[in-house]
Amino acid sequence: MIKAQTLKGFRDFLPVEAKKRQYVINILKQVFESYGFEPLETPALEYEEILLGKYGEEDDKLMYRFEDNGKRKVALRYDQTVPLARVVAQYQNELPMPFKRYQIQNVWRAENTQKGRYREFLQCDADIVGTNSLLSDLEILQCANSTMKTLGFKDFTILINSRKVFNVFGPDSDKITRILDKEDKIGKENVLSQLNETIGSSAKAAKIYNMVKNLQPVQIPDRLKKILDNNEKLGLNLFPMFFLARGLSYYTDLIFEIKIANYKGGSVCGGGRYDNLIGMFAGKQIPAVGFAFGFDRLMEAMEELKLFPAELTTTKVLVTVFSKDLEGKSLEIASLLREKGINTEIYLDQDAKMEKQLKYADKKQIPYVVIIGPDEAKNNTITVKNLKTREQKTIPFDQLLDLFKE
Amino acid sequence: MIKAQTLKGFRDFLPVEAKKRQYVINILKQVFESYGFEPLETPALEYEEILLGKYGEEDDKLMYRFEDNGKRKVALRYDQTVPLARVVAQYQNELPMPFKRYQIQNVWRAENTQKGRYREFLQCDADIVGTNSLLSDLEILQCANSTMKTLGFKDFTILINSRKVFNVFGPDSDKITRILDKEDKIGKENVLSQLNETIGSSAKAAKIYNMVKNLQPVQIPDRLKKILDNNEKLGLNLFPMFFLARGLSYYTDLIFEIKIANYKGGSVCGGGRYDNLIGMFAGKQIPAVGFAFGFDRLMEAMEELKLFPAELTTTKVLVTVFSKDLEGKSLEIASLLREKGINTEIYLDQDAKMEKQLKYADKKQIPYVVIIGPDEAKNNTITVKNLKTREQKTIPFDQLLDLFKE
Repeated sequence: MIKAQTLKGFRDFLPVEAKKRQYVINILKQVFESYGFEPLETPALEYEEILLGKYGEEDDKLMYRFEDNGKRKVALRYDQTVPLARVVAQYQNELPMPFKRYQIQNVWRAENTQKGRYREFLQCDADIVGTNSLLSDLEILQCANSTMKTLGFKDFTILINSRKVFNVFGPDSDKITRILDKEDKIGKENVLSQLNETIGSSAKAAKIYNMVKNLQPVQIPDRLKKILDNNEKLGLNLFPMFFLARGLSYYTDLIFEIKIANYKGGSVCGGGRYDNLIGMFAGKQIPAVGFAFGFDRLMEAMEELKLFPAELTTTKVLVTVFSKDLEGKSLEIASLLREKGINTEIYLDQDAKMEKQLKYADKKQIPYVVIIGPDEAKNNTITVKNLKTREQKTIPFDQLLDLFKE
Repeated sequence: MIKAQTLKGFRDFLPVEAKKRQYVINILKQVFESYGFEPLETPALEYEEILLGKYGEEDDKLMYRFEDNGKRKVALRYDQTVPLARVVAQYQNELPMPFKRYQIQNVWRAENTQKGRYREFLQCDADIVGTNSLLSDLEILQCANSTMKTLGFKDFTILINSRKVFNVFGPDSDKITRILDKEDKIGKENVLSQLNETIGSSAKAAKIYNMVKNLQPVQIPDRLKKILDNNEKLGLNLFPMFFLARGLSYYTDLIFEIKIANYKGGSVCGGGRYDNLIGMFAGKQIPAVGFAFGFDRLMEAMEELKLFPAELTTTKVLVTVFSKDLEGKSLEIASLLREKGINTEIYLDQDAKMEKQLKYADKKQIPYVVIIGPDEAKNNTITVKNLKTREQKTIPFDQLLDLFKE
């Protein structure tokens, strides 16, 4: 017999987990939409040439690529930014500009799997395409900030910087930037020695380090200054962190990351301005700013900080079936409850003992159980059991609805 | 330059379309959950051996299969029933039984594309696994019926039959069933001649045809009779249709399809009982009953019958920016509106003429526009324009919220 198993790095989400995911996704959508971002969906498969060479050599190797039945070279979605660039070029005349879209879809990467790293994972992006205005930078920060608050996070910081801080380092700028970016992880000494290795001068290394460490107001790039000026007015929690560089080299100005105080898993959101990427298929410069939430980290942080509601069950009541001849009565009550907008299950398996039915309700965390036995049927009453308190009471049939109106 | 294009049979859903899709998906989820179905997610990629040989030879050819970087033979999800069977075997002890799950995910099939047939499309399944009770059959029919009603369909029929009607035809049963199934499309004469071709006797062909056409009450399978007995009580719109067989051979008893009166695109939902499929990886018989909505047909029918709300924009207001020095005022009003739970956009591009900003609101179908010019700023008022009626009025700032409270 074939073994029932999933591929390494791929996951099933059983209802308990799937409901938590939906809870978070719904909040993301709600907040994104409150700022006027609208949903976009792109296909799982793209022509290979659309995706290849856009992320760097190392990433190209991690792409799921194959030939389809028609001998086309295709690849699975690797992120949502390159598909966005394709969409912007392909439907230039249809899209409202500035184009504000969010996209919440899976991407696939053949990574070495490890804790928190999967081969199929959800990306949650929101971007503003087609304007370089200060307002658009502010809106991206505001929206990320609102999302965190609406999810229930209280103690978090938006670390913020500008890529332009690193523009002064000349030809080695990329390498230097990558080293400085690690300051909070590896510390001053390691940064200095790695800088020294790269540029071959400990004096120069120290100079670079100190420049960033003690960045003078006059050295702060213009846009960053203006953003910081709005910090208080917009109730953001911006914190300038001049070592922050973010891995991806495509950022051109604003960069930011969100860190949660009591969560050690790393930043849960990152973003910035990238003015030279989105136009790649359109053949012209198209400015853009945006962010991506790391969904798996967000889920982990929510779990650790206990931000999920105690009850994610959407079902409110299980109507049990006392016996075959009282099945009709149970069906009737279940239909009635549903008509009144109360999510209701009826126990479906035949000839199950009451104990088994109550266990089912417990397993599905359904808060209330309704029992209609011969006495209840005769007297037009029902017995309702609260599965948390284990209290039960028998009430007239027509008081049933009041009970669930809390 | 690389051409910005999608693969044949694959689609982008721009915001206008994506919002309609979300509207329908949200209703499906809401109704499914009102019956206690819970979400399940399975991976896009599975081991090839999990999927291969489960759907028949023709279907195996349409599967997207390839070798991953680790030389594993993998395949893209082809439907949601085989993955469900895998899940049921893999997590036997964790799942509540009966297991009621819904699954709304894309599947991939390398079909010849044609109108309404795509290579990536959404499937919407709800199934009850682990019981053979009459109640579970009734619930599947009730839930499908409620879904149609909640989507806004008024004039539809649930065509219903039992696979057991065809059990009497002996070894040629499968072929005969498939011919009879086409009765409503090809008509009596063609059915008779195809039956004759298959079994080599026009007398026998006529006998079979007439038997089904005039099925006697005593010939109606037990379960089907009981289901039909509940028709009125449950307010279903069941209509027995004894030629109905449904293509898939795995059904074992109840089968049904939903047809909409004024929609010519075919049935929008199909389902039935299949007691021998789900246990394939568990090595034992596990009964199941369920249905699948054809999402693309559902979308087409909703469009044709004008069942989408006139406004699917979630944004209620566009706050325009009159001039650079009044930008702060606009930001303030936008934040205020959002705090009050009103989805609000601020126009983001710099130095845009008011006309351009109004066009943007029109394109995104945003119903209201707020203007704060120098007069408004001075007098603590705002001007609100209704983009549908083109009426506008200037009101005191603090009356703004009342306006959107309808």
